Amino acid sequence: MTTHNDSVTEMSEAQAWELLSGTVFGRLAVSVDNQPEIFPLNVHVDDRTILLRTAEGTKLSSLAVNERVCFETDAFTSRVGWSVIAKGSAHILTGTDEIAEADQAPLRPWIPTLKTIYVRITVDEISGRRFTIGPEPDRVIS
Amino acid sequence: MTTHNDSVTEMSEAQAWELLSGTVFGRLAVSVDNQPEIFPLNVHVDDRTILLRTAEGTKLSSLAVNERVCFETDAFTSRVGWSVIAKGSAHILTGTDEIAEADQAPLRPWIPTLKTIYVRITVDEISGRRFTIGPEPDRVIS
Repeated sequence: MTTHNDSVTEMSEAQAWELLSGTVFGRLAVSVDNQPEIFPLNVHVDDRTILLRTAEGTKLSSLAVNERVCFETDAFTSRVGWSVIAKGSAHILTGTDEIAEADQAPLRPWIPTLKTIYVRITVDEISGRRFTIGPEPDRVIS
Repeated sequence: MTTHNDSVTEMSEAQAWELLSGTVFGRLAVSVDNQPEIFPLNVHVDDRTILLRTAEGTKLSSLAVNERVCFETDAFTSRVGWSVIAKGSAHILTGTDEIAEADQAPLRPWIPTLKTIYVRITVDEISGRRFTIGPEPDRVIS
């Protein structure tokens, strides 16, 4: 059996927030009828919330029926990396003031659209991990 | 109103498979009690299946109670990118022959572990999109 160092380190919440705050791109997972869906998208992180833009369609209708979401962002090379996962509740912005505020965010959609809908995720759980590929131990024969 | 080109192109399934086949890293989304979870992980894509390794824990227990999964892999710069999403059913390998075959795959886990468990996802749905950030149209005032 080879000795090895554990290659995964849990971050503090403060570290996870720091990395999330600098993020402009990630993936949103939503459950629809207990079936997972993933959407890659641009975001703007502000005041412990994640702001995103969308147009009418699948993504939005998913959020409308199931507000619990999981957002992931990461950076990896072949040997090291980090990943931050934020869970929270998504809601569509409907108020004039909150839409005007969202309009000021440096947020670019992948799809130019005339029908902009903003969604803000209020994060209630965040975690982050750093990864290093270590040597692989021999398999235990049992 | 500014004219603009649509910045999202759907790939053919063949193109999506080609990109997926070259993938060694992505994110797996699983629904547990209709709550989405995301796991970044290394994979090996072979024969229209996605092979991954894990150890006992949350990820595995999620898969055990809910085999429907959604895998996403992507590559983005600030202006262009692509994303492939594969949906399918996950099952834990238990047979001696299938484990021996999986042992031959060029698959490295992030966490060195003595207790290797292989999971193979049989893909039954794949889609892919290419993105280009285009000019943003003016908002329609209605």
